Amino acid sequence: MKPAVVLLSGGLDSSTCLALAKSQGFACHALSFDYGQRQRQELKAAQAVAKTIGVASHRILNLDLRAIGGSALTDDIEVPKHRSAEEIGQGIPVTYVPARNTIFLSYALGLAEVLKAKDLFIGVNALDYSGYPDCRPAFIQAFQTMANLATAAGVSGESPMTIHTPLISLTKAQIVTTARRLGLDIDLTFSCYDPSPQGQPCGACDACLLRAKGLAEAL
Amino acid sequence: MKPAVVLLSGGLDSSTCLALAKSQGFACHALSFDYGQRQRQELKAAQAVAKTIGVASHRILNLDLRAIGGSALTDDIEVPKHRSAEEIGQGIPVTYVPARNTIFLSYALGLAEVLKAKDLFIGVNALDYSGYPDCRPAFIQAFQTMANLATAAGVSGESPMTIHTPLISLTKAQIVTTARRLGLDIDLTFSCYDPSPQGQPCGACDACLLRAKGLAEAL
Repeated sequence: MKPAVVLLSGGLDSSTCLALAKSQGFACHALSFDYGQRQRQELKAAQAVAKTIGVASHRILNLDLRAIGGSALTDDIEVPKHRSAEEIGQGIPVTYVPARNTIFLSYALGLAEVLKAKDLFIGVNALDYSGYPDCRPAFIQAFQTMANLATAAGVSGESPMTIHTPLISLTKAQIVTTARRLGLDIDLTFSCYDPSPQGQPCGACDACLLRAKGLAEAL
Repeated sequence: MKPAVVLLSGGLDSSTCLALAKSQGFACHALSFDYGQRQRQELKAAQAVAKTIGVASHRILNLDLRAIGGSALTDDIEVPKHRSAEEIGQGIPVTYVPARNTIFLSYALGLAEVLKAKDLFIGVNALDYSGYPDCRPAFIQAFQTMANLATAAGVSGESPMTIHTPLISLTKAQIVTTARRLGLDIDLTFSCYDPSPQGQPCGACDACLLRAKGLAEAL
């Protein structure tokens, strides 16, 4: 089995991405981040999902994104609620964490190099998404080009790294359908940006609304 | 004064890079990393250098690179000593930390986005260097392209980010001369990969040898 590094937040998208990588026969090394996010529930979800799907390893790295700040997910900025589909599609919301996917993919790249893995998976989605710039296909393509120049593989002429984004052009409903087809228990995943102190999803942030829309449309 | 983010390890190169950015009139936000490196002396050097040169801010972020491993600088792998100039120029040594510059630049990118800085400085050098793939001009160029797609600036059409590498084609002797011209106290900087427990440089690792060569040739 070929090794792959899979970014796993514990949300619906990254969990489905992990299930897809596993179904394609990869030995999956899951990578999660404790980056001072408001809510810790998603890390518990990531652990449960990794265990259920079955991974070769699961690392949770501590990151210091609060030292950078600038986001409702890491700072004391209010998470927007009850936005309409049109509002969600417009502009970059305050839940955007500056350079987050770049930082996450950079760690994945380092781990891939150590594990001699040539395949990285990230569950970004550019259709039913929050408008983050680092979810777009052009970003992923540019990261892959950079990754192959950044690493030892780029010097020694080994086979190049591939950044897989199997969800990038799926609707949320199609992601739900894919998750179900692969036998993923969606209830294990956790998407909310602003849960209660007891870990209950708020039901009103962009992530909750997009998830609810996907579940409704996949019925 | 325009803000710039400057990566600062505390070594000769990054310290000279900071002095150059400052001399160009930037308000410099220095960024250092405590990444579980063998030696802590360079972080003390970074603090002393930042204070002497005068920065707008200096952050030391905690990173978890040991969880990834794969390098003599973060693992229990022996640091090679007394290598000749030819040996140093050949292949990638075990002191290479997988994806390190990619990870460092990604954090710098996030901080730049928060500070609304369009200029990032990194003191990489592709001439008298240890053969790391992530010091090469092609890597820097690819990172800059990716950075401009990764961030909010890339969506909103703001002016693009520039990754400045003022040392990239200088010899070590030229870096020493530049540092002296800018009034940087070179004795404050620290380059060794494997110092004694008391923080004395070993004098025999690649970094010590390249530094000594530069100092000798700059006489």
